[in-house]
Amino acid sequence: MKVLVTGVDGYSGWPLALHLLSRGHDVVGVDNFVTRRRVKEVGSWSATPIPSFPNRRKAVRELLGKELGFHRGDLGDYEFVHEVLAREQPDAIVHLAEQRSAPYSMIDVHHAVATQVENVSGTLHLLYAMRDTCPKAHLVKMGTMGEYGTPNVDIPEGSFEVEFRGRKDSLPFPRQAGSWYHWSKVFDSGDVMFASKIWGLAATDVMQGVIYGIRTPEITDHRLLTRFDFDETWGTALNRFIAQAVLRLPITPYGKGEQRRGFIALEDSMQSLRLAVENPAAAGEYRVLNQFDAAYSMNELAETTARVANEFGLEPTIEHPPDPRVEAEQHYYHPLHDRLAALGYRRSRSLEDVVREIFHDLLHFRNRLEARRHVVLPTVQWRSVDSRPAILARSPPSPPPAAGPNESTPEGPPA
Amino acid sequence: MKVLVTGVDGYSGWPLALHLLSRGHDVVGVDNFVTRRRVKEVGSWSATPIPSFPNRRKAVRELLGKELGFHRGDLGDYEFVHEVLAREQPDAIVHLAEQRSAPYSMIDVHHAVATQVENVSGTLHLLYAMRDTCPKAHLVKMGTMGEYGTPNVDIPEGSFEVEFRGRKDSLPFPRQAGSWYHWSKVFDSGDVMFASKIWGLAATDVMQGVIYGIRTPEITDHRLLTRFDFDETWGTALNRFIAQAVLRLPITPYGKGEQRRGFIALEDSMQSLRLAVENPAAAGEYRVLNQFDAAYSMNELAETTARVANEFGLEPTIEHPPDPRVEAEQHYYHPLHDRLAALGYRRSRSLEDVVREIFHDLLHFRNRLEARRHVVLPTVQWRSVDSRPAILARSPPSPPPAAGPNESTPEGPPA
Repeated sequence: MKVLVTGVDGYSGWPLALHLLSRGHDVVGVDNFVTRRRVKEVGSWSATPIPSFPNRRKAVRELLGKELGFHRGDLGDYEFVHEVLAREQPDAIVHLAEQRSAPYSMIDVHHAVATQVENVSGTLHLLYAMRDTCPKAHLVKMGTMGEYGTPNVDIPEGSFEVEFRGRKDSLPFPRQAGSWYHWSKVFDSGDVMFASKIWGLAATDVMQGVIYGIRTPEITDHRLLTRFDFDETWGTALNRFIAQAVLRLPITPYGKGEQRRGFIALEDSMQSLRLAVENPAAAGEYRVLNQFDAAYSMNELAETTARVANEFGLEPTIEHPPDPRVEAEQHYYHPLHDRLAALGYRRSRSLEDVVREIFHDLLHFRNRLEARRHVVLPTVQWRSVDSRPAILARSPPSPPPAAGPNESTPEGPPA
Repeated sequence: MKVLVTGVDGYSGWPLALHLLSRGHDVVGVDNFVTRRRVKEVGSWSATPIPSFPNRRKAVRELLGKELGFHRGDLGDYEFVHEVLAREQPDAIVHLAEQRSAPYSMIDVHHAVATQVENVSGTLHLLYAMRDTCPKAHLVKMGTMGEYGTPNVDIPEGSFEVEFRGRKDSLPFPRQAGSWYHWSKVFDSGDVMFASKIWGLAATDVMQGVIYGIRTPEITDHRLLTRFDFDETWGTALNRFIAQAVLRLPITPYGKGEQRRGFIALEDSMQSLRLAVENPAAAGEYRVLNQFDAAYSMNELAETTARVANEFGLEPTIEHPPDPRVEAEQHYYHPLHDRLAALGYRRSRSLEDVVREIFHDLLHFRNRLEARRHVVLPTVQWRSVDSRPAILARSPPSPPPAAGPNESTPEGPPA
């Protein structure tokens, strides 16, 4: 199949491209490199050194013997999106090119607006371009388990049977997101569901659990590494805990630490996305997948991190700073996730194995963590307070670049 | 109370300002006049001649003996929003300044994106400016009954008790909107609910039924008339049916005509908004009001229109063109709307009385209808077809103007 991957330069976009190529698919990527700039904006960098994009493609050519197609541009530019889809005629589009950080969206009004406007317009542009140039393609849209919040009932995959005042219907499960970013994904879900209904597009909306990990089987060389963020804004929870242990900082689950979420290893997230691509939704079908492997509390992850850390001679403590977010710190959490298994999903490795692997790699890149150790602890507050850092409150969000369908100019590894 | 009304130059914003002033409230309006431009964009104008905004304010001064405050500017400009709220310190903000047409949002990709981006960013800007300058103010946000779609169960006001797999919770009622415009209102509802939760803002989210009518008790002179749109894009259903009868065109409920919606007379919508303002939500409360008076099918409205038309010597036929929208043409529809009554709402007049009054006024302005009779029938299609009018597909959405807190330069009545 021919698969277009938007956000191909990102944490999951890059290993997905490698995985799909290794399975014999044709892959064409799209990116505007805005995440590289936005990680700099908050004073951080990737723990793993990331080659420039031309060098990434060169590594793919030399190490995998494959050609990765690429268009540099911005999904905010409809002409660009239309031109790429019309030219490439993909069978599937995996749409990962969105602002993906909850804390980034909570920095201030401008970051909130940029997050929602960029995510919603990029998705709308893709939907219209699909309708007009490749209406039979299958859209695999990256959403988040965070769209659901933490209701006191089981969470179905997308819709559920409702009985209310004596009548029944099947309705979309209510969304109760926890940040402007998570709401932007809820908005996208509405738009994708509606486009599927009025135009007959085939769509899979992936309610993605939190991803952890640094390696996939295709990352066989340092030139093929994906980015690994460990700062409070761009790093995901477990990844950040391990970075804290490597830096000999306390591991810091927020508040009571009983917040439970769905998690999945990077390698298994790639497996899941590939399964969605290879088993497409039907025309007009809006399919929702709850894409996580298991639910853990933050305390369980902190304890696993501490246990494995001890194997490496690190002896981290666990501390509980006040929760900067507004969220239930103790709650019921039981989302269903049967559809992935039905597609053939199988967990590749245990949580502890992956945590051990991350420790191994991060200890190798310890100097890069040390050089940015100040970015790990939370500063962005969900509540209305004046404690937001002055630097972040002042700097506007890094704009997406002027877009164009041209090849990237080289972007070096961070500093 | 001091009430800020955004969108004060609009169909409901203007009579709301008159109503609140007449009840002794201080009123400050905000508008960017974009609706005047966008109605021109689709080749139409208001059936009622609308004075320039300075002349509207002059009429208020001379006829009501009241001063209407005003700031010209765009809610897309955060500095403007922040400055207005900081200076005015309103007790309540009635937020009507959004792109309000479903067909306009369905014209093409650019109109879709403009609708969602403008509506979401304007609301986010208001929420942040409230947080930072007047956190005790009460936000009355104009949403739409169309957020809910037409589920096969009763529609509660905002949230409902769910039982799923043996557990219970109270959750927001699922939204299934029917156009990019209606989805933009769903998105706003999410953002307002979330701001209320994290910052303790007081908010009333008004699920507004379709408004019909041309007069309110405060419109005692032609200089105080509100706009009245009758074209397919900007006119609401019943208003358009009456315009068709006046133009001796067939009345055209789409498809089977059994689509049911909640409706409310302009005068009663103003009553409802005032009641929401005078009985504010509590701090941190996100209150949803289903604001309609009664549900009617399109056929019922067409028949009422035809019956009253006969009194005026018009003898319209009723035709059923194919539905340009993607919607159920026959369905269950039973939304609850108890909260308004609890606030003291009482219907002012019967449907037929109001229809008679609209006929009276439109026959007076018949020449203005005749001059634009070509804009009444539907051309915008929800489905993926090539029948969209070339002119609309080519012209970009009228942009909001460069914003500033200055007084309006005069805008004349439409040609």
